[in-house]
Amino acid sequence: MGLRTVKEYKEGLRDNREVWILGEKVEDVTTHPMLRVGVESAALDYEMAEDSKYRDLAVAEQPETGEPISRHYYIPKTAEDLLKRHELLVTATRLGDGVIPFTKDVAGDSLNALMVTARVMGREEYIERITDYYEHVRRRDLSVACGMTDVKGDRSLHPSSPDQTHPDFYVRVVERNDEGIVVRGAKMHITAAPYCDDILVLPCRAMREADKDYALCFAVPANAEGLKHICHPMRYQQSPLEFPVDVPIRMHTESLLVFDDVFIPWERVFLCGEWQYAGTLAYNFSFFHRHTASCYRIAMTELQLGMAQAIAEYNGIERASHVREKITDMIIYLETLKSLARAACSDPVMHGGIAVPNPVVTNLSKYHFAENYHRFVKMIQDLAGGILITAPTYKDWQNPELRGYIEKYLGGRKGVPTEHRLRMLQLIRGWMASDIGGGLEVLALHAEGSLQAQRLIIYGEYQKQLQEYKERAKRLAGIK
Amino acid sequence: MGLRTVKEYKEGLRDNREVWILGEKVEDVTTHPMLRVGVESAALDYEMAEDSKYRDLAVAEQPETGEPISRHYYIPKTAEDLLKRHELLVTATRLGDGVIPFTKDVAGDSLNALMVTARVMGREEYIERITDYYEHVRRRDLSVACGMTDVKGDRSLHPSSPDQTHPDFYVRVVERNDEGIVVRGAKMHITAAPYCDDILVLPCRAMREADKDYALCFAVPANAEGLKHICHPMRYQQSPLEFPVDVPIRMHTESLLVFDDVFIPWERVFLCGEWQYAGTLAYNFSFFHRHTASCYRIAMTELQLGMAQAIAEYNGIERASHVREKITDMIIYLETLKSLARAACSDPVMHGGIAVPNPVVTNLSKYHFAENYHRFVKMIQDLAGGILITAPTYKDWQNPELRGYIEKYLGGRKGVPTEHRLRMLQLIRGWMASDIGGGLEVLALHAEGSLQAQRLIIYGEYQKQLQEYKERAKRLAGIK
Amino acid sequence: MGLRTVKEYKEGLRDNREVWILGEKVEDVTTHPMLRVGVESAALDYEMAEDSKYRDLAVAEQPETGEPISRHYYIPKTAEDLLKRHELLVTATRLGDGVIPFTKDVAGDSLNALMVTARVMGREEYIERITDYYEHVRRRDLSVACGMTDVKGDRSLHPSSPDQTHPDFYVRVVERNDEGIVVRGAKMHITAAPYCDDILVLPCRAMREADKDYALCFAVPANAEGLKHICHPMRYQQSPLEFPVDVPIRMHTESLLVFDDVFIPWERVFLCGEWQYAGTLAYNFSFFHRHTASCYRIAMTELQLGMAQAIAEYNGIERASHVREKITDMIIYLETLKSLARAACSDPVMHGGIAVPNPVVTNLSKYHFAENYHRFVKMIQDLAGGILITAPTYKDWQNPELRGYIEKYLGGRKGVPTEHRLRMLQLIRGWMASDIGGGLEVLALHAEGSLQAQRLIIYGEYQKQLQEYKERAKRLAGIK
Amino acid sequence: MGLRTVKEYKEGLRDNREVWILGEKVEDVTTHPMLRVGVESAALDYEMAEDSKYRDLAVAEQPETGEPISRHYYIPKTAEDLLKRHELLVTATRLGDGVIPFTKDVAGDSLNALMVTARVMGREEYIERITDYYEHVRRRDLSVACGMTDVKGDRSLHPSSPDQTHPDFYVRVVERNDEGIVVRGAKMHITAAPYCDDILVLPCRAMREADKDYALCFAVPANAEGLKHICHPMRYQQSPLEFPVDVPIRMHTESLLVFDDVFIPWERVFLCGEWQYAGTLAYNFSFFHRHTASCYRIAMTELQLGMAQAIAEYNGIERASHVREKITDMIIYLETLKSLARAACSDPVMHGGIAVPNPVVTNLSKYHFAENYHRFVKMIQDLAGGILITAPTYKDWQNPELRGYIEKYLGGRKGVPTEHRLRMLQLIRGWMASDIGGGLEVLALHAEGSLQAQRLIIYGEYQKQLQEYKERAKRLAGIK
Repeated sequence: MGLRTVKEYKEGLRDNREVWILGEKVEDVTTHPMLRVGVESAALDYEMAEDSKYRDLAVAEQPETGEPISRHYYIPKTAEDLLKRHELLVTATRLGDGVIPFTKDVAGDSLNALMVTARVMGREEYIERITDYYEHVRRRDLSVACGMTDVKGDRSLHPSSPDQTHPDFYVRVVERNDEGIVVRGAKMHITAAPYCDDILVLPCRAMREADKDYALCFAVPANAEGLKHICHPMRYQQSPLEFPVDVPIRMHTESLLVFDDVFIPWERVFLCGEWQYAGTLAYNFSFFHRHTASCYRIAMTELQLGMAQAIAEYNGIERASHVREKITDMIIYLETLKSLARAACSDPVMHGGIAVPNPVVTNLSKYHFAENYHRFVKMIQDLAGGILITAPTYKDWQNPELRGYIEKYLGGRKGVPTEHRLRMLQLIRGWMASDIGGGLEVLALHAEGSLQAQRLIIYGEYQKQLQEYKERAKRLAGIK
Repeated sequence: MGLRTVKEYKEGLRDNREVWILGEKVEDVTTHPMLRVGVESAALDYEMAEDSKYRDLAVAEQPETGEPISRHYYIPKTAEDLLKRHELLVTATRLGDGVIPFTKDVAGDSLNALMVTARVMGREEYIERITDYYEHVRRRDLSVACGMTDVKGDRSLHPSSPDQTHPDFYVRVVERNDEGIVVRGAKMHITAAPYCDDILVLPCRAMREADKDYALCFAVPANAEGLKHICHPMRYQQSPLEFPVDVPIRMHTESLLVFDDVFIPWERVFLCGEWQYAGTLAYNFSFFHRHTASCYRIAMTELQLGMAQAIAEYNGIERASHVREKITDMIIYLETLKSLARAACSDPVMHGGIAVPNPVVTNLSKYHFAENYHRFVKMIQDLAGGILITAPTYKDWQNPELRGYIEKYLGGRKGVPTEHRLRMLQLIRGWMASDIGGGLEVLALHAEGSLQAQRLIIYGEYQKQLQEYKERAKRLAGIK
Repeated sequence: MGLRTVKEYKEGLRDNREVWILGEKVEDVTTHPMLRVGVESAALDYEMAEDSKYRDLAVAEQPETGEPISRHYYIPKTAEDLLKRHELLVTATRLGDGVIPFTKDVAGDSLNALMVTARVMGREEYIERITDYYEHVRRRDLSVACGMTDVKGDRSLHPSSPDQTHPDFYVRVVERNDEGIVVRGAKMHITAAPYCDDILVLPCRAMREADKDYALCFAVPANAEGLKHICHPMRYQQSPLEFPVDVPIRMHTESLLVFDDVFIPWERVFLCGEWQYAGTLAYNFSFFHRHTASCYRIAMTELQLGMAQAIAEYNGIERASHVREKITDMIIYLETLKSLARAACSDPVMHGGIAVPNPVVTNLSKYHFAENYHRFVKMIQDLAGGILITAPTYKDWQNPELRGYIEKYLGGRKGVPTEHRLRMLQLIRGWMASDIGGGLEVLALHAEGSLQAQRLIIYGEYQKQLQEYKERAKRLAGIK
Repeated sequence: MGLRTVKEYKEGLRDNREVWILGEKVEDVTTHPMLRVGVESAALDYEMAEDSKYRDLAVAEQPETGEPISRHYYIPKTAEDLLKRHELLVTATRLGDGVIPFTKDVAGDSLNALMVTARVMGREEYIERITDYYEHVRRRDLSVACGMTDVKGDRSLHPSSPDQTHPDFYVRVVERNDEGIVVRGAKMHITAAPYCDDILVLPCRAMREADKDYALCFAVPANAEGLKHICHPMRYQQSPLEFPVDVPIRMHTESLLVFDDVFIPWERVFLCGEWQYAGTLAYNFSFFHRHTASCYRIAMTELQLGMAQAIAEYNGIERASHVREKITDMIIYLETLKSLARAACSDPVMHGGIAVPNPVVTNLSKYHFAENYHRFVKMIQDLAGGILITAPTYKDWQNPELRGYIEKYLGGRKGVPTEHRLRMLQLIRGWMASDIGGGLEVLALHAEGSLQAQRLIIYGEYQKQLQEYKERAKRLAGIK
C-alpha cells in the first residue's frame, strides 16, 4: 500500500456504486461524459504526488513510520504545518485553473476535526476507531467526501421537532444492533461524492437531548447498499457558440445523498447519541474546512483579478481614475483574503497536540470573501462593459459574411486583436455572467456554511475577549 | 391611419430586413423561434391599446387633433403627464412579467429628447424635421428602436483620435450630397431593433470640434440597404431539465447594428456636424430613458421581492431576525427606487413647454437600482440556500425510482408541497443564478449607461446648487 | 387671541416652572445665558409669522373660522397641505442656520397624531378632548414640547416587568380620581421643553395588557407642580480660541423631565389604560415627526455640503477625481433625502380626512439620512484634511509674533485669504469634529427613534405588499 | 551612556526650545499644565525599560556590542523582529490606555526608513551619516519626532509650481555652504514634537526634478535656532461636569513647526536635491509607520469594543439580535485589523538585510481601520443610546435635590448601579461623541496619510502581480 497512482484511484471508483444524473443511472463515473471532468479534477491530488515539481508539497512523511503519505493526511501540529497545507491547497487550485481537487483536502478537514473532537469527548473507543479509520484512509490513500448538510425540512425547527413533516430531515439512527447501526436520511449538496472512495458523514449543527438520534457521525463506502447518489448536472463541454479553448471546463458535481436504511458497522461509527458533541464536531470541521475554502478562493480570485486587468487594458480604460479605484478595491479584497487565510494558520489553537486554524480568524477569512464576493463580481462586470452579454457568438465569427464586420467593429485598444478581446469577454462571461457565474455567487454564500453561520461562530468564540476588553473599559471609566 | 393592431404591427416587420442570429440569416422575425418571443413582448404595447382595461392608460389624445395616439407619443407638458407615463411603463412591465415592451417606450424617450434638443439648438429646419418625423411615427403608430451606444474602440480615446485603429468606431458621415448623407459605423447592444419599424440613431457622448463628423442623429427604416442586424441569441424555451411553466420566457435581443454606408435623406437627419449639441442630445435622452429604466425596474423588483418572501416562507425561516432584516433591506431598496422614480416626475425641468424628468433625480433613481442590485441579488440567493444550485432536475423528478426520495427529502415547511418549493427555486435560479441572471446583473450596470455616466451627470447638473450652498456656509463662517 | 408675537411668547415662559441646569435652578429661561439661545431659535416660528416675507408660508387659515393660525396647527388634508408644511419646515430651518425652531413643529406632529389615533380608537370623549385641546393650543398659539421617550430601565423588559428595578421606568398612572389622574415617571431627551408652554406626553412603544397603566397620553403646562426639567447644558457662546463670528450658536437643550406625582385633569388625558392603542399613537406620531426630521435635515445637509465644496476649493483639490467622487456621493445623499421627504408627502395615507405622510416612505427618508450620516461626515473630514484638528487657534492668530507665520504657511489656493480657510475649517470643526459634531452623530441615530425603530416600522407596514408580490412570483413559478 | 531614565528624558527637554501654545510661550514643557500629560505619555517608553515586567519587550541587545538598547532602535532583520516590535507597540499603547507613547516608536520608523532608502540610493556618504546618526540616537536613547507633512498650500500643485502663492509651502533649502544648509518652510500636525529631543524632517511626497530644492531630509535638535513649535492645545483635565476618574487624560499635541531659516550641518543632512528618492523615502517611512499605526489602533479598538459590550449589558440589550450583529461586526473589524497587522510582519520585504513590513499589507491594515472607523463609532453610539449626549452632568448628580431622581430614573439593568452606567456613558462620550471623539475620527482618516495615499501605494506596489494574474487569465481564455 501507500500512495496510489491516478490509475489506481480511478479503478477504485468502478465498484457498482448507485449514481444517478439527469434521471439516469451512471455505469462508470470515470467515463461518463459529465462526471469524467470532475474525476480528472479530483485526480490532481494524485497527480501532484507523482510530479517531481510538486511532490515535496503534496507528500509528507508519516511521523511514526517515515512512510510517504499525502500531506492532506498529515495531522498538523504547528503553525508551519498549517502553512504548508495552505500552500498545497492554493497550489492545487492554481493547477486546477481555479478549481480545487476537493477529495483528499476535505477528507483531511473532516478527519482532523474528528481527531480533535474525539479528544475533547475523551472516550477511548472513539479515539481508537477514528485513529484506525484515519490510518485506513492514509495507508490506502483514499479519497473521502464529507457529507455535512442535512436536507433540514423546515429550517426553523430542530431535527426531532414534531412539527417537521417527517422525522427524516436530518440523518438519524433507525436501528442499533450488535454489528452496527442502520441509518436513514439524506445529505445535500455533497461535492464530489460519486468519485470518492468513502463518504464521511458528520452532523451539521448543535443538537439538544431530544435530537440524540441525529447526533451521528460515521464513514461508509460510496458503494454501500442503500446509498444513492443523485447528482446535479454540470457544464462539461463548450458550446458551438464559443471560441474553442483547450483548457478543460472543470466543475464538480454536488449530490443529494440518500441513505435508504444503510448499515454501518460499529468500527465506522464515530458519534452516535452523544448530542452534546454534535456541535463541537461541526464547529471543528468548520475551522479546518473554512480555511480550505479560503485557500481555494485565493487562487480563484487571482484569476478573476487577472481577467479584470486584462479586459480593462483591452478596452483602453485601465488608466481612468475610476477604473484604477476599482482595481485597487479588488486588490484590497484579494490581499485581505490572503492575509486572513495565512493569519488563521499563524495563530492556531492547539487541541491535544493538533493545530487547529484559528477559529475566529478562519471564519473571518471565509466571511470576508463571501460577504464581498458580489461586489467584486460587480466591479469586473462594470469594467467589461455591456458587450459582456451582447457580444456576437463564435458562430457569427465563423460566418465569412459577418466576420469582417465583427473583427472591425468590436476591436478595442489598438494592437489588441479583436479575437483576444472576444475571448477574454467569453472567459469573464463564463465565470461571472452565466449559469456557472450564478452558481459561483451562490457557492460563495452557501458553500462551507452561510454568512450567518460564520457570524455566529465569530461571536460565540469571542466571549472571553469581550469580557476582558469590557474590564479594561470599566477601569478607564472609574468603575470599581 | 391611427393606432395599429398587433397584427398590423407584426405585418410591418416582414420587409426583408437583414437580420442575423447564430450566424444565420432570419427569414421572418415574427416566426423565428428565438425572436418570436421578443416580438410578442414588444406587441404588448399594441395589445394594451386594444384592451379596454388598459386603454385609458395606453392611449392619449393628440392635443391638436383630438385623435387617439399612443401615450408614449404624447409630449409631456406637466408633472402629471410624466406621472401618467410612469404608470403606463410600470403597468406594461407588470404585464410583461417583469419585461418591458421596449419599442414605443424608448421611441418616446428618444423623440422627446430630440424635440427638447432641437429647441435648445434653435435651428428651425431641425425643429421642423423632427416635428414631422415625430408626427410620422405617431400617426403610423410605429415602433422605433434607439441606436445609442457606439462600439467605441479604445474607450479612452475620442471618436476622431488618430490613435484609434480605424476612424469608424463611432458612427460617422462619410458622404454628403443634395439628397442626404451616407453613414458608416456600428452601434452595439441595441435592444429590440429587429422587430422595430425604424431605428433612430443618436450620438452617445459629448464631442469636440474635431469629432464633428460623428455628431450625428438620424432615423432610418430597419430594412434600409446596408443596415445589418447581428442579433445576440437568447433563451426562448424551457429546458427538459425544468418543471414546465406556461408563462413565456420573455427576453429581448440586443443587436450589433452595422451601417455599411447607409443612405439617409436629409429629412431624416436631425444632427449633422453640430458637435456642440451631441452631448446635449445624449443628456436629454438619458433623462427620459433613465426614467423609463427606473419604471421597468420597479415591476421587476416587486417580482424579485415576491420570490424572496416566498422562498423564505417555504424554507421556514421568514421569522428569523436576520431574514427579516434582509427582507427589510429589500423593501428599502424597492421603495427608495419607487420614491425616486416618482420624484423625478414630480419636479420636472421645463424646456420650451416640454416637461423633462428631473435630471438629477432621474439619474439618482437609475443609479440607485444599479449600484445596489448585486447586493439585492445576494440577499435573495442567501435566503434561497445552496439548494438553489444543487436541486435535482425535472428529469430526476420524472423518474419514478427517484421521485419519492426527492419529494420526501426536499420538502420545506410543513404544508408546502415539495414541488412548489422546487418550482420557486427554479424561478429564482432562472432570474438570479443563471445565464439570464448574470445578464440581468450586467444590464443593471450597463443598460441605459454605466454607473459612472450617471455620477458624472449628477455632479455636472448640480454646479449651481453647490455654489449656493457654499455661499451659505461662508456666511456662517463669518467670511465676507 | 390669535397669533402671538415673539414678545408674548417669551412672556409666557416666565411662570415659575422648575428648571435646572448644571445642578442649579434657573430663574428665567428667557434670560439665562445658556437657555436664551434656545428660546431665540424657538421664537423663529413666531418671527416668521410676523415677517411679510414668510407670512404666507407660516400662517394658514383655520377652515371653520377663517382666522389666521400657525400653519403648524393646520390639519393637513391633502398631499399639497403636507408639501406646504414641508416647505415651512425646510425654510424655518434654513433661517435657523441649520437648526429647527422645534416648538410648534413637533407640537403639530403630536397633535395631528393624536387626532388620527382618536379616530382610529373611535371613542367620542377622546375625540372631543383632543379636538378641544388642539383648539386651545391653536387659538392661544402655544408652543408644545412632546414628551416621548421613557427612561426605560432595562431596555429588554416590558414596562410592567417585575424584573425591572422599580415600576417607574415608564411614565404611569399611580392614582385615578374624579378630577383626573396622578402620574409618575420620567421622560428623557425632551427637546426644548423648558421654553414651551405645554408638554404633551405620549407613550413610546406598543404595550401589552399588563402594561395598561403605562398606556398614557396627556398634556400638562410646563410649570405644573411636581414637574421638574433637568436640562442638558449646551454650547452657547464662542470660545476665545475661535475666530469671532456674528451668527449665533443655536442649540436646543434636551431635558430629563421628572413627573413626581403630577396631577392631570381628565380633560387633558387622551389615553389612559387603552393599551391596544399605545403603539398606534406612537406609530402615528412617528409618521409625522420623522417627516419633520427629514425636513430639517435637508437644510442642515445643504449647509454641510456647502462646507465641503468650500474647503475643497480652498484646499485646491476640488478637481481631483476622488474629490469629485466624494462630492457626487454627498449630492446623492442629499438629493435622495429630498426626494424621499417629498415623496412621503405626495403619497399620503388618509385617516378620517387627515393626510398622514406615507408611513413607509417617511420612515425610509429618516432612515436614509441616519444610516448614512457618518459616512457623509467622514467624506467632509476627508476633504478638510488633518488641519481640521491641528489648526492654530484664534489666540495664536492674535499674537503678532505668530500671525505672520500662520498667515504665510496655512494658506491654501492662491487668492483665498488664509483667514477664510481657517474660518471655514473652524466652521467644519464645529459641526463635524467637536462636542457638537459628536452630538449630531448621536442625534442622527437616536433623535426621532433609532435605526432599528424605523426598520421595524418599514417591515411591519409592508406586509400586504409582500404577500401581493409573492402571489405574482407564484404565478410565474407555475404554482397554482 | 545607554538607556536613559524617565528623569533624564525629562531633564533633556529643558533646553530653551521655542514652544508656543494658545498664543503664549511655554517655559518648561515638562511642567506646563497642558503639555505635561503628553510628556508623561511619551515617558512610558522609558518607564517600560525600567520595569522588570516589560524590560524584555522594551529592551533589545545591540548586535555589534551586546549593549542594551531600546527595541525601537533595533534594526529588524526578520519577520520575528517585526512581530516583537509589533508586540511592544501594542503593549505600550495598552499601558497608555489607548494612547501610544509616540516618541521612540515613530523615531524607529523614520530611522529604519532612512537606512533602507540610503541603501537603495547607494551613496556611501549618506549611508555613513545615517548610520552615525542612528547610532547617536540609539546610544543617547533619544526621542525623535518625525516631521513629515508639509503645509502644501494649493494641494493640487507641485512644490515648485509658480502658481503657489509663495515658494515655501514645502520645506526647502534656501542656502548651501561648507558647513551645511539653511532650510525654510513649515511642517504641520507633527505629533509630540515639543517633548522630543530631535526632529527628523522627511519629504512627504514624490518629486520632480524642478522640485529638487524640496527633496530634503535632515535631523535637527528641537531647540535649534529659528525652529518654532506652535502647538495645538488639547484637553488635559476633567471638567467639573464630569464624574472624577483617576486615570489621566492622555493626549499628544500636534504642532505646526516653522523653520525660519534654520541651519543644518552637513552631517545631519540625509537627502538634499536627490529628487528621485524623495518618494522612495516617503514610501519606506509609510511602510514602517503605517504598521506602527495599525498596532496602536489594535489597543484602542479593544478598549472601544469593551465599552460597547459594557454599555450593551448595562442597557440590558446585549442579547437582542441586532445588538449581537453589531458586536459581531465590531469583532470582525478588530480581528481583521489584528490579522492584517500581523500579516504585514510575517511577510516582510527585505532591503539590504533590513526587514520592511509588507508594503501592500501594511497599507491595507492602515486602510482597513481608517476606512471603517466611522462605521465602528456609529455602532457604539447606536448601542449607547441618545442618553449618550443628554445624560445629566456630575454637577446635577452632586445636587441632593436632583440626585435621587437621577439615580432612580437613569438606572439600566437591575444590579448595575446608575453611577456605573453614567460613568460608562461618560467614557464613551469622551471617546466617541466629543471634541476628542471628532479628533479621533479625523485622525483615523489623516494621521499616517490619507485613505487615498494608502490606495495609491497599494495599487502602485501591485503592478507585478496584476500582470502575472493577467497572464493566467489569458491562458484560460485561449489567448496565445
